[in-house]
Amino acid sequence: MALKEILLTPGPSQVPHRVRAKLAEPAWYHRSSRFREIYKEVRAGLQQVFETQSDVLVFTGSGTVAMEAGIVNIVGPGRKAVVVSAGKWGERLVQIFEQFKLGIDVVKLEYGRSPSPEQLAERAKDPAVQAVYVHLCETSTGAKYDIEAIGKAVRAANPEALLAVDGISGAIGMACPLDAWGVDLFMAGSQKGLMMPPGLSMLTVSPKAWKVVEGNKGAPTYYSSLLRARKDLPNNDTPFTPGNTLFDAQNEALKMLLEEGIHNVHKRHATLAQAARAGVAALGLELFPDSPAEVLTVVKAPNGIESSAIIKYARDRFGVTLADGQGDMKGKVLRLAHMGYCSGMDLLSGLAAIEFGLKNAGAKVTFGSGVAAAQELLAKAPKDVWM
Amino acid sequence: MALKEILLTPGPSQVPHRVRAKLAEPAWYHRSSRFREIYKEVRAGLQQVFETQSDVLVFTGSGTVAMEAGIVNIVGPGRKAVVVSAGKWGERLVQIFEQFKLGIDVVKLEYGRSPSPEQLAERAKDPAVQAVYVHLCETSTGAKYDIEAIGKAVRAANPEALLAVDGISGAIGMACPLDAWGVDLFMAGSQKGLMMPPGLSMLTVSPKAWKVVEGNKGAPTYYSSLLRARKDLPNNDTPFTPGNTLFDAQNEALKMLLEEGIHNVHKRHATLAQAARAGVAALGLELFPDSPAEVLTVVKAPNGIESSAIIKYARDRFGVTLADGQGDMKGKVLRLAHMGYCSGMDLLSGLAAIEFGLKNAGAKVTFGSGVAAAQELLAKAPKDVWM
Repeated sequence: MALKEILLTPGPSQVPHRVRAKLAEPAWYHRSSRFREIYKEVRAGLQQVFETQSDVLVFTGSGTVAMEAGIVNIVGPGRKAVVVSAGKWGERLVQIFEQFKLGIDVVKLEYGRSPSPEQLAERAKDPAVQAVYVHLCETSTGAKYDIEAIGKAVRAANPEALLAVDGISGAIGMACPLDAWGVDLFMAGSQKGLMMPPGLSMLTVSPKAWKVVEGNKGAPTYYSSLLRARKDLPNNDTPFTPGNTLFDAQNEALKMLLEEGIHNVHKRHATLAQAARAGVAALGLELFPDSPAEVLTVVKAPNGIESSAIIKYARDRFGVTLADGQGDMKGKVLRLAHMGYCSGMDLLSGLAAIEFGLKNAGAKVTFGSGVAAAQELLAKAPKDVWM
Repeated sequence: MALKEILLTPGPSQVPHRVRAKLAEPAWYHRSSRFREIYKEVRAGLQQVFETQSDVLVFTGSGTVAMEAGIVNIVGPGRKAVVVSAGKWGERLVQIFEQFKLGIDVVKLEYGRSPSPEQLAERAKDPAVQAVYVHLCETSTGAKYDIEAIGKAVRAANPEALLAVDGISGAIGMACPLDAWGVDLFMAGSQKGLMMPPGLSMLTVSPKAWKVVEGNKGAPTYYSSLLRARKDLPNNDTPFTPGNTLFDAQNEALKMLLEEGIHNVHKRHATLAQAARAGVAALGLELFPDSPAEVLTVVKAPNGIESSAIIKYARDRFGVTLADGQGDMKGKVLRLAHMGYCSGMDLLSGLAAIEFGLKNAGAKVTFGSGVAAAQELLAKAPKDVWM
């Protein structure tokens, strides 16, 4: 039999059958009422799952388009941003600032750490600071940042500063009510909690952020121009040819999330995260981040074993795809994602695959011990947590 | 019965079943040998169908990303470009130059006209000219530009100038052998001749163009940065999360094109174009462009009839989607595309739909007369033209 695969990487995540059926539909014309209705519904659905009244723009492209849009339209000449860099995705934010030669004050932390609200507030005091950029989850390390507390501290220090959050991996899986927590710019991608293949990215823009965008009319950007995208919003249209079949499928995925209920979605992810942590603890694996996120569990490879070997065996022998560390972290950490269309059984498969990989690499493992520890927690989950 | 639809717009075009089946496959990890093999195959396939040895880069995004990449990385400070603007897509090129405040010398022509090689050569003589930007097909008017002659004339006038061609709608359907014709930058999109939904765009970069790119290291671009994309090419990788399921499906579409043979694909489009022109002529409709392209036929709406009315009736009553004019041309022209996965029968359906629309709008029409004129030509097509 060809390997029956289970995808447990922190993006792309699994895509439900209902959504894949939409992706296989015949092509259709994008300058049409069909597209305008879909784009309207998609944006309304995204407002619901992101818990915001802010405008939501959808770009055809990688999450990086939303990142670029959320930076280059915001930080103008003579202004600067505070940017946390404690992993590969913080480094990506910094790279974008550098490419566009924008003002930046980097808060560099060791991989696996999360920033304290106080240290960000201290940096945000400078009146030249236009915005503070953080992640909901730094996907490369599995670290969760405390967006609510960071927002409060930054606003107290500098009420003019915007709060910009890279939610590309954290969105949907992790609670982050944008309006309640005062998030002005929120970046997301289709291929994580939004249960789609990669190809769409999203950016929310608060009224406070729009004012800043309006003051940056000369921003050096075309494809990621927010003013250009806003011009077409009243017509539910996009300035450039949208990936319309992807929008249609994203709409279906949003319907599924809304049927489950966004708070149930958060509870499901929290339950899976607790079970994952119990599972890896039972296998003697140490968590990598100080403050672990709900959408993936990142553990250190045990002494003398390369995580790459565990991952390769799990994938080649049992069809379970886990993720390796990125850049310098390759071989040193193992990333088990439980985001998006992920069930309790998927998680147990992930843990069983880690057990196989550890045993194959020569580690002392009792088969089923990680799985059993997770089962204990899954069995105790409240009935309204769908899995 | 729900309307059985036939899509005859100049992008998106129809997507074959084989390709749609790929789009419905389960999600998979993009940082993998599976992706690297697919990206390598896709690029090799694109080199074959574009008839070039130049590097081909594939971006996740609209065709506009390829346009932006082919402009902002090329035209640096103190340099300028000659840009032909004779329709909506020429205006898009100009807008990109304006947004980035790049030097530009616009050759503005009436809608429907094609530039003469001589007038472009005259403008290209200025040693500040870095590149000349033209379309293979100006999709808004249906006009074909003579790329071979333009290339020769421009090179004779200024051997340093690059030839940049927007092939987004013309690629695949229209012959444009890049190396033979000296095209340095060629922009394409997935949703036209490449038989895919929108979501990917392509740019070829000749060795001569790479030298120019290398001299523009500070170009204000991140997502569309060519230097960044080139860094990952030796590994068959992309700098940002690619729409990997789209790449997989694009690979399948390329296989279909290569099975047909790219020269047969050109012959099929030329045959369909001749038949389409015979069909509209028999209906008394006048061609809009001076020099019509092989991928779509644009005709003026007959006196007293809005093309929008014809289009609406054809779509609502018979499920055939034709395209209206864009911007000021709305209601004044009708665009019948015969690009990509389009057969002789599809074309006949398009002509029959125009006949229905004309009759419904009160025009004098003999049913079947446009269809019959097209049939005459289709019946005479050589046996090796697949339809």
